[in-house]
Amino acid sequence: MTHVEADAELPIIWITREFQAAPGRLLRAHTDPDLFARWIGPDSLQTRIEHWDARTGGSFRYVSIRGGEEYAFYGSFHQIRPDRLVQTFTYEGDPEAVALNTLWFDDLGDGRTRLRTRSLVDSFETRDGWLRSGMEIGLRDGYDKLERMLSDEAG
Amino acid sequence: MTHVEADAELPIIWITREFQAAPGRLLRAHTDPDLFARWIGPDSLQTRIEHWDARTGGSFRYVSIRGGEEYAFYGSFHQIRPDRLVQTFTYEGDPEAVALNTLWFDDLGDGRTRLRTRSLVDSFETRDGWLRSGMEIGLRDGYDKLERMLSDEAG
Repeated sequence: MTHVEADAELPIIWITREFQAAPGRLLRAHTDPDLFARWIGPDSLQTRIEHWDARTGGSFRYVSIRGGEEYAFYGSFHQIRPDRLVQTFTYEGDPEAVALNTLWFDDLGDGRTRLRTRSLVDSFETRDGWLRSGMEIGLRDGYDKLERMLSDEAG
Repeated sequence: MTHVEADAELPIIWITREFQAAPGRLLRAHTDPDLFARWIGPDSLQTRIEHWDARTGGSFRYVSIRGGEEYAFYGSFHQIRPDRLVQTFTYEGDPEAVALNTLWFDDLGDGRTRLRTRSLVDSFETRDGWLRSGMEIGLRDGYDKLERMLSDEAG
């Protein structure tokens, strides 16, 4: 259900998934720190928000924890719009790499949304390294949690 | 002296110029709002800073003015390091386009710095549109002003 694809022409990862929730609820799940921490990342990790200022020109930092290990991520909210979220993203364990992520919340009607993410990096080497890193597991686990969270809210 | 090049493989514009100033002074010219407003853009424009928070996770917005016309630009400072500045950039007249700009301040010794900018966008169409827009004139004018400003400070 989560579709992950390497772009043929550019160092981009495309990620698509449909949710049974209106676009505004998807946006909120990406901008409200308490909601975001509940679903982001693989099942085996817990997330602690260190800094969160979700507005155009704001920024974030969070830490994912498994046992004694911590993985930190940070970035900026370049733009937050009802239909689009543009943000930068760096994993501090690979500090030179920066992704420019654009998320679109496509309204499918009937309370459904297609979430499309385009993750653009500066080289195919970086892009392919991310794909090999197991990011898909984290994505699929995270979106499954997000789906359950949206379903619980609605129910 | 200002070298502008379209990348052959990726939707990137590479911009290179050497300056008679140490890296720290180049970084300051890009992060101090009063200094930045003095040199950015073509000679025919004046720049007014609307918002400026130059730190990792901060953001900016400025307006360039020619007669009664105003052109607004905004973005985020993803990361500020002594050797590297990573920021996003959008011209509000073309609101869908977002560039991820990385500036490196290469220390050449003897008080000289090579400023290298990599401007990455999401398509060749956007990249080529920017190159056709006359951005080179603004770049060259701006860097000439920056060179004079650095020279005046030193003298």
